[in-house]
Amino acid sequence: MSDTHIASAFDRDLETIQAQIMKMGGLVEQAILDAATSLETRDEELAEQVRQGDRAIDALEEQINEEAARTIALRAPTAIDLRLILTVMKIAGNLERIGDYSKNMAKRTTVLAQMTPINGSTVALRRMAREVEKMLRDALDAYIQRDADLARDVVNRDHDIDQMYNALFREFLTFMMEDPRNITPCMHLHFIAKNTERMGDHVTSIAEQVIYLVTGDMPDDVRPKQDRTSIDPTVAPKA
Amino acid sequence: MSDTHIASAFDRDLETIQAQIMKMGGLVEQAILDAATSLETRDEELAEQVRQGDRAIDALEEQINEEAARTIALRAPTAIDLRLILTVMKIAGNLERIGDYSKNMAKRTTVLAQMTPINGSTVALRRMAREVEKMLRDALDAYIQRDADLARDVVNRDHDIDQMYNALFREFLTFMMEDPRNITPCMHLHFIAKNTERMGDHVTSIAEQVIYLVTGDMPDDVRPKQDRTSIDPTVAPKA
Repeated sequence: MSDTHIASAFDRDLETIQAQIMKMGGLVEQAILDAATSLETRDEELAEQVRQGDRAIDALEEQINEEAARTIALRAPTAIDLRLILTVMKIAGNLERIGDYSKNMAKRTTVLAQMTPINGSTVALRRMAREVEKMLRDALDAYIQRDADLARDVVNRDHDIDQMYNALFREFLTFMMEDPRNITPCMHLHFIAKNTERMGDHVTSIAEQVIYLVTGDMPDDVRPKQDRTSIDPTVAPKA
Repeated sequence: MSDTHIASAFDRDLETIQAQIMKMGGLVEQAILDAATSLETRDEELAEQVRQGDRAIDALEEQINEEAARTIALRAPTAIDLRLILTVMKIAGNLERIGDYSKNMAKRTTVLAQMTPINGSTVALRRMAREVEKMLRDALDAYIQRDADLARDVVNRDHDIDQMYNALFREFLTFMMEDPRNITPCMHLHFIAKNTERMGDHVTSIAEQVIYLVTGDMPDDVRPKQDRTSIDPTVAPKA
């Protein structure tokens, strides 16, 4: 068996796994959008669909991990190829977490549909979710095209998500202080905002993996800081 | 090279990785306890220590993943050994997440130290964190001893953590409704409670991996449901 033969067998395996990653990515993108739509339109059926759909996402992660391990075992890849496979597994892990957060958003849709709506908040949450979904699409494009510039762009955009979250955090506090009846729905909405912000972190992590893959450089230290509410005591609204 | 030789080389590699897992587990256990203590005693120095310490935990996960991948590539393990290595990587991933939650708790300690204390809540949070730490210790013991019964016990105990969280959720809502000035600190405390509950989920996931490893059976479906506040609309206190 020549080296070329081994290399192309590895490439074939990798292509199979990458196809699964793209499939998984597509399902996760849809889950984000559907969860946010179900929240805004109070569509409990769509929310239930998102909850059910998470199984397919979990199953794909499992499949990717098994496939990746089998490839490592079979092909005994070089150090660089090994890193590539490990990256794929990490990306699958990030996608799975984003899927989980979407499922959680859909769960809270069901709860929130029975409560008084909080003025405008679900529209803002959907905007935030849409931004995260776009970032995810770009991060996966960057992965497939090995485009470090696009990946860097995604990392930078996480800052916008963080700002959206911080603005929502303040808004929810104001609503809660205005009327105690807003407290329970706002707690749920705040969780959704926080989880969406965490989705952004996972997308960023995918983009960072791409940068590392292409440039060999992990941009961990230059990464803009995320949720300021856990470190900044001035989060309380002036009201 | 005989089969026995290969097997024992694999075993040696596995032992090295398991030693790293135990080291990582020890650091994470300490991080949980220290974070909870720093919260209760408003010890900002200890909180800073937890935040700094998370780097060592992250580095260990990285090391375990590289070591595991190298072992797979070098030893071309059988299907069962391959599953074992993948389990180790998953456990390392769970430990890393628990470490992250501890770090987040420590971050919020710094913020909360500047706010009015909420009567008794940090004591309850520390009790909850302690339970999670004990569960983690048992889950790792179960892993090393391949003790499915102990692992099952850990899975069942996650229910107690969920109950503690649900009780705290209701308590925080009450405090927030009583006095708007409690809203901001309670939002942070609630996050800590939620993150501690999530730590419990990750410990449960470790225990489930152990059960799977020993019995070949994944107890995903029988697993007791977690946070009821995202599915149960009756979470609002009667007050």
